[in-house]
Amino acid sequence: MNPKRCAACKYLRRRCPKDCVFSPYFPPNDPQKFACVHRIYGAGNVSKMLQQLPDQTRAEAVESLCFEAKCRVDDPVYGCVGIIHLLKTQIQKTQNELAKTQAEIAVAQTKLSQTQNSDFM
Amino acid sequence: MNPKRCAACKYLRRRCPKDCVFSPYFPPNDPQKFACVHRIYGAGNVSKMLQQLPDQTRAEAVESLCFEAKCRVDDPVYGCVGIIHLLKTQIQKTQNELAKTQAEIAVAQTKLSQTQNSDFM
Repeated sequence: MNPKRCAACKYLRRRCPKDCVFSPYFPPNDPQKFACVHRIYGAGNVSKMLQQLPDQTRAEAVESLCFEAKCRVDDPVYGCVGIIHLLKTQIQKTQNELAKTQAEIAVAQTKLSQTQNSDFM
Repeated sequence: MNPKRCAACKYLRRRCPKDCVFSPYFPPNDPQKFACVHRIYGAGNVSKMLQQLPDQTRAEAVESLCFEAKCRVDDPVYGCVGIIHLLKTQIQKTQNELAKTQAEIAVAQTKLSQTQNSDFM
C-alpha cells in the first residue's frame, strides 16, 4: 500500500491517481473529513460536484460540503438548516433590542428638548 | 405505468412500493423536489438517511435536505453555507448598529442629567 494516498483513496481502498480529484483537499492525516462527506453525499457525488467546478473554487466548495455534512451528522433532521433558523432567531432578537433602544433614545431626546425649552420660560 | 407513483419512483423508473420511503414526501406533482435531492445526495443516500430517522421527523428532514440541495444547485461552491455567512454578516451589522444606538442613548442621558443638574444651580 502507498502511504502517500489521500484520505479519500485510503478510505475507498484504491490507488491514489496522480490527478486524484480528492487528493488536494483530503490529506491522509484527517480521515474523518472524508468519512463525513462520503457518509452524507457519497464519494461519487462529491467527485462529480468538484469536477464541475473550476480548480480555484474547489477548496472552498470542499470546506462548505464538509461543514454541511458535519452538521447533518450532528443533526440528522435539520442539518445546517438548524443553524440558519438559530441565526434568524438571533437577528430577530437583536433587531427587537435595537428597536427598543431606538424608542428609548427618542424618549430621552424628547425629555431633553422639553427640559431645554423650559429653561427659556 | 402506475400514474400514482411518487415523484421519486417516477424519476427512478421503478414501481412505487406500498411502503415506499419517498412516497409520503415526494408527491408526483412536484418532480423537481426529488430531482434536486437526487442530484446532490443521490436517492440511495436520501433513502438511507430517512430510514435512520423516526417517522415523525422524516418530513422535516426531507424539507431541510431539499433546502440544502436547492442551495447547492444554486450556489455550487458555498451551498447554504453562503446563507449562513450572509446571516452572520447581518447579525454583525445589526449588533454594530445596536452598539452605536446604545452609545447615543448614553450621550443623550448624560446631556439630560447635566441639564437637570444645571436647573438646581
